[in-house]
Amino acid sequence: MTPESVVVLAGGSGGAKLAEGLQQLLGEGLSVIANTADDVEILGADVSPDPDLVTYWLCGQIDEASGWGLKGDTSTVFDRMVGLGAPDWFHLSDRDFATCLYRRAYVQEGGTRTGAQAQIARALGVRAKVLPMSEQPVRTMVRTTEGSRGLQQFLVAERAEPQIEGVELEGITGAVPSPEALEAIAAAEAIVIGPSNPVISIGPILALPGMREALADARAPIVAVSPFVAGNVLKGPTREFMAAIGRPATATGVASLYAGLLDGMLCDEADPDPPPDDVVTAAAPLLMEGAEGRKRVAERTLDLAGSLIGPQ
Amino acid sequence: MTPESVVVLAGGSGGAKLAEGLQQLLGEGLSVIANTADDVEILGADVSPDPDLVTYWLCGQIDEASGWGLKGDTSTVFDRMVGLGAPDWFHLSDRDFATCLYRRAYVQEGGTRTGAQAQIARALGVRAKVLPMSEQPVRTMVRTTEGSRGLQQFLVAERAEPQIEGVELEGITGAVPSPEALEAIAAAEAIVIGPSNPVISIGPILALPGMREALADARAPIVAVSPFVAGNVLKGPTREFMAAIGRPATATGVASLYAGLLDGMLCDEADPDPPPDDVVTAAAPLLMEGAEGRKRVAERTLDLAGSLIGPQ
Repeated sequence: MTPESVVVLAGGSGGAKLAEGLQQLLGEGLSVIANTADDVEILGADVSPDPDLVTYWLCGQIDEASGWGLKGDTSTVFDRMVGLGAPDWFHLSDRDFATCLYRRAYVQEGGTRTGAQAQIARALGVRAKVLPMSEQPVRTMVRTTEGSRGLQQFLVAERAEPQIEGVELEGITGAVPSPEALEAIAAAEAIVIGPSNPVISIGPILALPGMREALADARAPIVAVSPFVAGNVLKGPTREFMAAIGRPATATGVASLYAGLLDGMLCDEADPDPPPDDVVTAAAPLLMEGAEGRKRVAERTLDLAGSLIGPQ
Repeated sequence: MTPESVVVLAGGSGGAKLAEGLQQLLGEGLSVIANTADDVEILGADVSPDPDLVTYWLCGQIDEASGWGLKGDTSTVFDRMVGLGAPDWFHLSDRDFATCLYRRAYVQEGGTRTGAQAQIARALGVRAKVLPMSEQPVRTMVRTTEGSRGLQQFLVAERAEPQIEGVELEGITGAVPSPEALEAIAAAEAIVIGPSNPVISIGPILALPGMREALADARAPIVAVSPFVAGNVLKGPTREFMAAIGRPATATGVASLYAGLLDGMLCDEADPDPPPDDVVTAAAPLLMEGAEGRKRVAERTLDLAGSLIGPQ
């Protein structure tokens, strides 16, 4: 059977693109649980890069050429703030700034982050649900040879240049998955771990106390989509983060991080190191070029997941 | 003698225009103490209308046609936030929004409001000092026949339509003049009470505990410039606020609010009710049209103040 109610765990890049492909097939049947450990408060705004990137992909306003940011956005407020003396290392375009200010005001008035993201997605015409992984703050800290720093500072201000020694998740022990995320997992017919950075995007979601148990208890099969295409990373320092935690930058390396959870894995047909036999593996070209490319990978993902749904 | 070091107390409209005229004559010798009881937190921004309007007048970026807001500003962030579901009653244009976000971030990082405003003014090329009246929050509440509400809600959302019964200043007993304002007053050669609304713009400045004493102790003469031109108000509900506290909307009505402080008063030559003899009164056309008009009124103000500086 083809699943009609699907949860995907995602960061902001590969996972968001797959989510867009899945939304083409599933519409409102899709729920995206997005990493919030990238969040940062800056310039008075409550910046939540992964839920917002997912939202921008799903509403069709993403700048597909760069893979991030909003198509044709301006930068009037940011430029003016920098002119006044504000720090300029983290750029926010105007409509993106508006999203982050809206979230902040919504939460300050007593709303949940989940409620804010739902309203943002609804207002922008997104059909799927976009669920922040947790209501509690979790922050990815990157330990480097030059000291520990926030993920955005590492990625943006330092261009991921310092050598990574490890990753810590500040606040993780006091955080729990949001009720909406747990509900979506329990109700899903299939669960997909998207092709996002396994360490800094999927890692924090899985590290939430109770999340692995909720996934293991779910009736749905769990399939991962490898972030590696022909052994390469399309975007971001995935290879460096994998190396820092002692894993190869291959489908097998990724599978090892999801051990105990996976029923199946979709790997690129040119992956040099597909996972071992206890995981049902399918191979496909995983490059998601254009809406058709995203839809094709989404179809292969649902095919694999569908083949694993049994009378349990 | 003509004073070279002058303090002006101002709201955002008439007082700001006079300040611009005075800056033409005095440059860095001018300090503007601006009302902050209009401040409001909205859309995640720390909005301080009077200090900012003064600043925009002094840096030449004001939209002179409307008398408020920045020339040629856009509204991308506000429009997007409203599209997401944010309240739309208080409009913020992009570069104005940037100012208010900058202030908020500055204060959140431990800076003072005075420091934030100084940096904003410096970055925009203002020569005079713009000093928020206090570091502590004071909020003008308008008591109407329909209940009590914040000043911005009354002025903007309700267009000043409900009948005013009185004015309260929330937080006033816990507030004090800023050290920088007190220092400027003590050092000034002349002190000018600008032609702003005497009740809601000048009123909160004078109501700060210690402010009247500081003004009375200052060596400088104090002159007021009437906000009434030929018995009329140029902008805003000054007449209604004067009526609500039982004063005539004339120069004499204004002088009665500044009793015990005034050494002189500059009234419009067509004022129907100039103040009594214990105040040295000069009459001039007070309409401030264009840079020349503002300069002319500023000159007359300094002339009057200068005539009152004696060997004390």
